[in-house]
Amino acid sequence: MQRLGILLSGRGSNFIAIAKAINEGRLPNAEIAVVISNLPEAPGLEAARNLGLPALSLPSAGRKRAEHDADILAALRQHQVDLVCLAGYMRIISPEFVAAYPNRILNVHPALLPAFPGLDAQAQAFEYGAKVAGCTVHFVDEQMDHGAIILQRTVPVLDEDTVESLSARILEQEHLAYSEAIAHVLSGDFHLVERRYLRRT
Amino acid sequence: MQRLGILLSGRGSNFIAIAKAINEGRLPNAEIAVVISNLPEAPGLEAARNLGLPALSLPSAGRKRAEHDADILAALRQHQVDLVCLAGYMRIISPEFVAAYPNRILNVHPALLPAFPGLDAQAQAFEYGAKVAGCTVHFVDEQMDHGAIILQRTVPVLDEDTVESLSARILEQEHLAYSEAIAHVLSGDFHLVERRYLRRT
Repeated sequence: MQRLGILLSGRGSNFIAIAKAINEGRLPNAEIAVVISNLPEAPGLEAARNLGLPALSLPSAGRKRAEHDADILAALRQHQVDLVCLAGYMRIISPEFVAAYPNRILNVHPALLPAFPGLDAQAQAFEYGAKVAGCTVHFVDEQMDHGAIILQRTVPVLDEDTVESLSARILEQEHLAYSEAIAHVLSGDFHLVERRYLRRT
Repeated sequence: MQRLGILLSGRGSNFIAIAKAINEGRLPNAEIAVVISNLPEAPGLEAARNLGLPALSLPSAGRKRAEHDADILAALRQHQVDLVCLAGYMRIISPEFVAAYPNRILNVHPALLPAFPGLDAQAQAFEYGAKVAGCTVHFVDEQMDHGAIILQRTVPVLDEDTVESLSARILEQEHLAYSEAIAHVLSGDFHLVERRYLRRT
């Protein structure tokens, strides 16, 4: 059994999708070891408690990044976490954190990276007039929205879309893509050629 | 009948795909009025002559951009061109040229813009480790690979791909996408909301 550590700052819809995938047997060798939020009021923490999962609030407000990240690392180690999954975690993580879990920190971003990194990716794509949008699951490295890409899924942008309808369509794919990517990373059946994530055959 | 002016610098595979679409009736209201190359030795010029189309060499070497573009504009006007299609035209066009054909200059780019603009887009996508690649047909504005997007088509990037196999897969979609986009622009059934190209219903 491999143990996931979830970091979130909001409602954690991607965390809930991961929990659901585990319950439905789509992530057969994984369990959620701990859910950590940097915001005490994040609804995702409450959702974790409702699912009977260990839920920790480690507030980042007023703390230095390195110190806060050290607290998170200590909590992840205490819970024997194998793979860290960012799920709407609105913090840049420190190089020390990245180095502690090499190719063991995942993130999902609501755009086809390298297009539309950063905040409000869906609105960026909408306003740019992109005809194809999507999501990217990637390893986390020292740069924002930058690490090697594990998988990407596309959705069309429709003429009748609003930012909200487009975001909802992308979010559906995030929920599917994230569990699929976690399962594949946990299988270990991959290797990296520079930035290219290649599945072993 | 609407008249297309093709600008190219190389073999003009997208030009040939447009000519094929016209011959096959997929662009029923269009004809190619003239094919112009800035490189006298471009194989696309020879291909145009073989198809019985007016083919002009207007060398850019040693000429100022504004002067060269003025020559091209004069040729386009002389041939009563309604819509300009860049087909592997390896020159930035001047603001005066853009202003002379507002929303009447198209380009196809072998990437899902705004990702991977500029040269060697397919190799950029390959080396980045993108899992989805594609092409973009867009209006040409004053910035490189930047105008409003008419359509985008995606292709998967496969683990066994080389830059060459990926480029070939993208090129197939370019050939389809470009004629489809030209047909739609010629229909006039669209409007632009800022950068968003919306089809009239």
